[in-house]
Amino acid sequence: MSESRSPLAENAVELTRALIRCASVTPEEGGALSLLEGVLGADGFDVERLTFSAPDTPDVENLYARYGSARPCLVFAGHTDVVPVGDEAAWTHDPFGAVTDNGLLYGRGAVDMKGGVGAFAAAVLDYIRANPDFPGSIAFLITGDEEGPAVNGSVKLLQWAKEQGEEFDHCILGEPTNPRALGDMIKVGRRGSLTGRLTVHGVQGHVAYPHRARNPIPALMRYLDALLATPLDAGNERFDASNLEVISVDVGNRTTNVIPAEAHAVFNIRFNDIWTLETLQAEVRRRLASAQEGLPEATVRFDPSNSVSFLTGPGPFVDLMCDAIQAETGRRPELSTSGGTSDARFIKDYCPVIEFGLVGDTMHQVDERTPVADLEALARIYRRMIEAYFSSMSSAG
Amino acid sequence: MSESRSPLAENAVELTRALIRCASVTPEEGGALSLLEGVLGADGFDVERLTFSAPDTPDVENLYARYGSARPCLVFAGHTDVVPVGDEAAWTHDPFGAVTDNGLLYGRGAVDMKGGVGAFAAAVLDYIRANPDFPGSIAFLITGDEEGPAVNGSVKLLQWAKEQGEEFDHCILGEPTNPRALGDMIKVGRRGSLTGRLTVHGVQGHVAYPHRARNPIPALMRYLDALLATPLDAGNERFDASNLEVISVDVGNRTTNVIPAEAHAVFNIRFNDIWTLETLQAEVRRRLASAQEGLPEATVRFDPSNSVSFLTGPGPFVDLMCDAIQAETGRRPELSTSGGTSDARFIKDYCPVIEFGLVGDTMHQVDERTPVADLEALARIYRRMIEAYFSSMSSAG
Repeated sequence: MSESRSPLAENAVELTRALIRCASVTPEEGGALSLLEGVLGADGFDVERLTFSAPDTPDVENLYARYGSARPCLVFAGHTDVVPVGDEAAWTHDPFGAVTDNGLLYGRGAVDMKGGVGAFAAAVLDYIRANPDFPGSIAFLITGDEEGPAVNGSVKLLQWAKEQGEEFDHCILGEPTNPRALGDMIKVGRRGSLTGRLTVHGVQGHVAYPHRARNPIPALMRYLDALLATPLDAGNERFDASNLEVISVDVGNRTTNVIPAEAHAVFNIRFNDIWTLETLQAEVRRRLASAQEGLPEATVRFDPSNSVSFLTGPGPFVDLMCDAIQAETGRRPELSTSGGTSDARFIKDYCPVIEFGLVGDTMHQVDERTPVADLEALARIYRRMIEAYFSSMSSAG
Repeated sequence: MSESRSPLAENAVELTRALIRCASVTPEEGGALSLLEGVLGADGFDVERLTFSAPDTPDVENLYARYGSARPCLVFAGHTDVVPVGDEAAWTHDPFGAVTDNGLLYGRGAVDMKGGVGAFAAAVLDYIRANPDFPGSIAFLITGDEEGPAVNGSVKLLQWAKEQGEEFDHCILGEPTNPRALGDMIKVGRRGSLTGRLTVHGVQGHVAYPHRARNPIPALMRYLDALLATPLDAGNERFDASNLEVISVDVGNRTTNVIPAEAHAVFNIRFNDIWTLETLQAEVRRRLASAQEGLPEATVRFDPSNSVSFLTGPGPFVDLMCDAIQAETGRRPELSTSGGTSDARFIKDYCPVIEFGLVGDTMHQVDERTPVADLEALARIYRRMIEAYFSSMSSAG
């Protein structure tokens, strides 16, 4: 088959296979960033390797690369870290072997998202080789901390780039965005995420003397009922409905004869642009207060890592991406804001960002895999997008 | 003061002080049983030391002693093990120092229940010395596993005694039974205790895709609501109302973006003689089933250590104890079945049992302590009871 492959497709597959062979489970770099540094540096990119640190989290390596300095600057963003392999014995092929079997490339990160990185790196190099003096510049923001705490990754990489005077015009994040088939879906926004931790203090006591104690558990249940009582909203034309899930309740009482002193719960809200962090936190407090009569007080603490929703487009940038996808796959992708968060929540503060990559159905699973044909088509889509972007956006800009 | 003390009172205090100085925190024997062995053996008791073992619990030492073989046999039961000292720095006096300060004897176990053991041992020895040929016999059942798992203590000691052919007529357990003042209360029964563990299995999933998951936490809350919906009963003339407490809820989800697969709760029911273990377990299952429509199934598992309620008396044995208390304190004690469980739940299968001891208000606390005067009065009460028991019960028996 290889004689019929274009160099672009071949490079995309070979680069992805080389990346999969790097065991870069967060926070390990595993050789993946060194590989990119070599490949991009050889084609004229200025490459920076940056290690960030913070208390209570592992140090993480990241990579920034740029070719040219002219505007517009198109950024490709992604991560080379992967989640653990899980039950390694259940894998059909070595999770770090990058084995191709029956047209499918197996490996941890194949779709999330070494395939995306391999495809856009190959597309960029192919474009630059054909157009060394294109009217603009291209940058890479590659983190090793997307699947981990996300503290020493894109947040700090973007801050660092800004401090260096780097300015970006548009960004494509190569996360797997397609539910079933390549071309199904672009993500043009994401709901926000708010995590809250609820504590109810009661009065500890012996279970045989409940009148001398005050059990915090029934009170906590009433507060959680109040949080869950009615939907936060019904969604709108841009976003799904906001949703609150109670994700943990913990007391940790090991005895069978003591009424505990405290009860704890954790909830997470995925919320749309009907809410800001401030209005949503106020709504949480309002619901808790509505339940408080006759109960011991509940205290709520919100995590510092919360993020608000965002939306990119509609407009020429999104249209160009849709055109490139349609030209290659025949499908006009759905513009979606569904699903979880991604590093786009950090990038959106620096420039408009959209997400498009492989089909995500095997991500984080045993036997994560992608059709080789998808990988090749994705590289061609990115290649079309780059060509169209610098043709149209640079004249517009 | 000591010149005005009777030898009985003096022995009760000295024996209690000596027991407190034995650091017998469960499961440590700490020298407490050896002390009793010496004291009882010197006065003609046949003493047996018995160590019992079981998987997953520490070995525990126990003591059985008997003076005489005639019926009736009056048993004094108790334990020499104590709960940990807690915050030792917060104690006014060394918790194992047995310091007397301003008429108060301080020490871990002073009221629960080395004071009870010291008082009844002194009373028995005083009676035997004065009446070496009394018409009956006296036994001691002393365990070192009352404050622990209660697996290698009274349960096995009673079984062992039965296998030896030992037969008992009545038992006095020296647990602290008085809420405020010596003479307030005899325990003539106890409610039963049933511990259940509830598990709801949902379907794990990403919090951004709740439609693909099934959160077990709201379901668990509905099941707990059903358990708590209405009181189990209103109590009766013999017992307080039965009461169910949810004492722990645990999910243990450390993430903020995953809907968990399982949620767990633990509840404990203190129940009266309106229920048997069987009818109460059936009621729990009925309440769970009533909530099940539309929810993932809940499974309930009952602990093996559950016990049913019991009641001793009314009758001559209880009357004798009340008379002895009234003669010494001027108070006619309340006959109560309130509060937690005790080893009486095991003894009641062998002979009628009542409980009377010191004032319990400092038990298990920092600065556990008893007025020395209470200890002396308790010894006199037990002494009166023994005298009256063998005068009246042996002629009746």
